[in-house]
Amino acid sequence: MKKIIIIKVGGAIVEHEGQLNQLLDQFAQVDGPKILVHGGGRRATKVATSLSIESKMVDGRRITDADMLKVVTMVYGGLVNKDIVARLQARGVNALGLTGADADVIRSHRRPLKNGIDYGFVGDVDHVKGDLLLTWLDQGIVPVIAPLTHDGQGHMLNTNADTMASETAKALAAYADVTLVYCFEKPGVLSDPADDNSVIPVITRTDFDRLTADGTIAGGMKPKVENALAAVSAGVGRVIITQASAIGQEGGTVIQ
Amino acid sequence: MKKIIIIKVGGAIVEHEGQLNQLLDQFAQVDGPKILVHGGGRRATKVATSLSIESKMVDGRRITDADMLKVVTMVYGGLVNKDIVARLQARGVNALGLTGADADVIRSHRRPLKNGIDYGFVGDVDHVKGDLLLTWLDQGIVPVIAPLTHDGQGHMLNTNADTMASETAKALAAYADVTLVYCFEKPGVLSDPADDNSVIPVITRTDFDRLTADGTIAGGMKPKVENALAAVSAGVGRVIITQASAIGQEGGTVIQ
Repeated sequence: MKKIIIIKVGGAIVEHEGQLNQLLDQFAQVDGPKILVHGGGRRATKVATSLSIESKMVDGRRITDADMLKVVTMVYGGLVNKDIVARLQARGVNALGLTGADADVIRSHRRPLKNGIDYGFVGDVDHVKGDLLLTWLDQGIVPVIAPLTHDGQGHMLNTNADTMASETAKALAAYADVTLVYCFEKPGVLSDPADDNSVIPVITRTDFDRLTADGTIAGGMKPKVENALAAVSAGVGRVIITQASAIGQEGGTVIQ
Repeated sequence: MKKIIIIKVGGAIVEHEGQLNQLLDQFAQVDGPKILVHGGGRRATKVATSLSIESKMVDGRRITDADMLKVVTMVYGGLVNKDIVARLQARGVNALGLTGADADVIRSHRRPLKNGIDYGFVGDVDHVKGDLLLTWLDQGIVPVIAPLTHDGQGHMLNTNADTMASETAKALAAYADVTLVYCFEKPGVLSDPADDNSVIPVITRTDFDRLTADGTIAGGMKPKVENALAAVSAGVGRVIITQASAIGQEGGTVIQ
């Protein structure tokens, strides 16, 4: 069965010149069909601040009003995405930068009110065109996906990059053995946030319920692992949470 | 022979909500394989001003320093491009937003000093992947191209949209009967700038030499017509300069 690797990198890595170049060097060396999904949060906040636009966050998620939607469309879809694409092209990777709107690759709907909170122009993913991504992968094209989707009615929507990565993995699981890798600052999911050597090697659904109940998995890591478990339930081969510097190597937390 | 229409729209149209929607309505109705190339100049200037970045122009061309390159990458590649893509998707057009870096579609080199002027991060087009664009057109995909290219060495480059449109037309002329349409504010090339009824119906190379010598064609129109003539010499079927509201209709100036 064809193997596909989907690698998701967060906003923090994208901001550090040295780390980004190292990541892209390693990504370039990954063999076979591959997709990169990137975030870019803090850079958008910086640009918004420069433009005197206030950044509003609730539970670690951005509230996207009309002005902020323009900023994230500029920063994620333009600045960050094209910078990565150009750097990958220089490394011999035939990168194609995409938002969900491009060729209707990932469609979403605007998130309804949740607990009375209006997240604004934020999209929850409805559909990923796995067949089209597969066609491109077969042509040697490497999709580089920004955390933006569209609603099919003319509106871009700010979308969680972790979710986009897992939904893309699920859509491709129908055609291939998919490995989904979440890269972030730490070497894996830690049982002690202060100790980088406390990587939890494997997390199953049962482990997750226990680790969230006792508070070991909390904050931004919770939806990350939750997405990973949902992806595995939907046929994704494995989800690995690891450090960007460990791409293509053993280690990290395997979610299965 | 397969027919392909390439339509280039300027920055001014893109800024006006009503005009943009009208343009996209008409573009959506154009039958057969088609490509949209867009500018977006003034919006970049506005964002740059908000970010306290100075816009420098020489002979109507932007001097692109490192900060301005970030702005145009954000505004052209992100804001303007994705807005158009999302609006076209809502009109049933399977738009795919592209810069030259994406899938290495249009590669350029940084412009050397000209008459002692350093244009900064500005690209002169070297190569357009006509075969790839053709493959996408055959799949029903409609490329929407932003005025940005890359140098293959990791750098985005600000690039003249008119030139990108004509170079794309030339690359596709090897495979198809290509019509290249330049849309702008006026109904065509005017013999009297003050009189919209003074459209010059046809311009050949000989006409051009005369009309530039006597000053009828000057300023920004000069490189536009020059690009058009070069495209025709290189095999493009015809180049039409017309008003955006006249897309798909008779009229305008035909350059042949």
